[in-house]
Amino acid sequence: MSFIPLQPDLPLGSPHERSDAARNRERLLSAARELVDEFGAEALTMDALACKAKVGKGTVFRRFGSRAGLMMTLLSDAESDFQRAFMFGPPPLGPGASPADRLTAFGEGRIYFVLENGELLKAAGAATRNRFDVPATKLSHRHMEVLLREAGIADPWVMAMSLTYALDPERIVDDVRVRGISPKRLTDSWRDVVARLMRTT
Amino acid sequence: MSFIPLQPDLPLGSPHERSDAARNRERLLSAARELVDEFGAEALTMDALACKAKVGKGTVFRRFGSRAGLMMTLLSDAESDFQRAFMFGPPPLGPGASPADRLTAFGEGRIYFVLENGELLKAAGAATRNRFDVPATKLSHRHMEVLLREAGIADPWVMAMSLTYALDPERIVDDVRVRGISPKRLTDSWRDVVARLMRTT
Repeated sequence: MSFIPLQPDLPLGSPHERSDAARNRERLLSAARELVDEFGAEALTMDALACKAKVGKGTVFRRFGSRAGLMMTLLSDAESDFQRAFMFGPPPLGPGASPADRLTAFGEGRIYFVLENGELLKAAGAATRNRFDVPATKLSHRHMEVLLREAGIADPWVMAMSLTYALDPERIVDDVRVRGISPKRLTDSWRDVVARLMRTT
Repeated sequence: MSFIPLQPDLPLGSPHERSDAARNRERLLSAARELVDEFGAEALTMDALACKAKVGKGTVFRRFGSRAGLMMTLLSDAESDFQRAFMFGPPPLGPGASPADRLTAFGEGRIYFVLENGELLKAAGAATRNRFDVPATKLSHRHMEVLLREAGIADPWVMAMSLTYALDPERIVDDVRVRGISPKRLTDSWRDVVARLMRTT
């Protein structure tokens, strides 16, 4: 169901998955999301999930392979929802709005996405040697590059990379949780950056 | 001699250091810089430095405490030269030019500084839990914040943070060495970003 599995060999659901298996998977993921929302990503263990979802621990391991696999699946599902929205959803995030409006909506959406999934993103980022190797980050970069090119930026690849780093999960989470910056200040500044970068006059 | 010792208890030279001791320190640091230039930061060991500078190993340990202390001293010296240039040096990097010209020169200088000192910066960054905790990074942020405020940006603190992340050493080193982007493309794009962010019409 995910556009971009964060690890190619994850036991993700396939379109041919039997419907009761799909329902079980969805039930386990809902329970996992509730655990993360309530107690943070650190509290999400295979034991806690089995207990919460009222299934045997073996079921949880068969489904996700490992705790890391479970975290990646959760994040991948959330990423794919966001990806679907900016690639195919309604404007201004999806197609149909101006590049500037789409880029504004993209950054705002990304900031809130990071704040909702910060602990999972941190876990995923810590698991990769290079933060840019995360497939979702590459797709974000590609999306921004296309919008910047449409707006006539001379080197959209490099500018998109600068903006990708400005939306770095570690930066967003630390600004809000460590340095006490409100999410609204981050989205207001993003809006200002995009307006200034992309104005045509 | 350094504005910002990267660790407060580093055995840095003081103004009252006896001149022969200062000469010895400078000779050791030159030898260390040559080793890094020739073989990379990984080759810089206390043994190699003692051998290169033709002194006893004990002298090297008395002077720098440890290999980490030596690395931090090297980086701190390089950072303080760059800091002196943007705080007190000639325009456009130093005072006397417009905020836009100073910010352009700052980013260009920073990109080349990172490429020259990439391995030391990586070692320093890996040693801190949060990359923003590096004092030189805080001073860079503060400098950009002041220039953005002079240019009338609504929230210069947050925008400076976005730009600080765009100049992230890991990003710059990986763009050039892993992804094959030329330094000139990075400085051209930085120039374009600053021109667009700070134009007044």
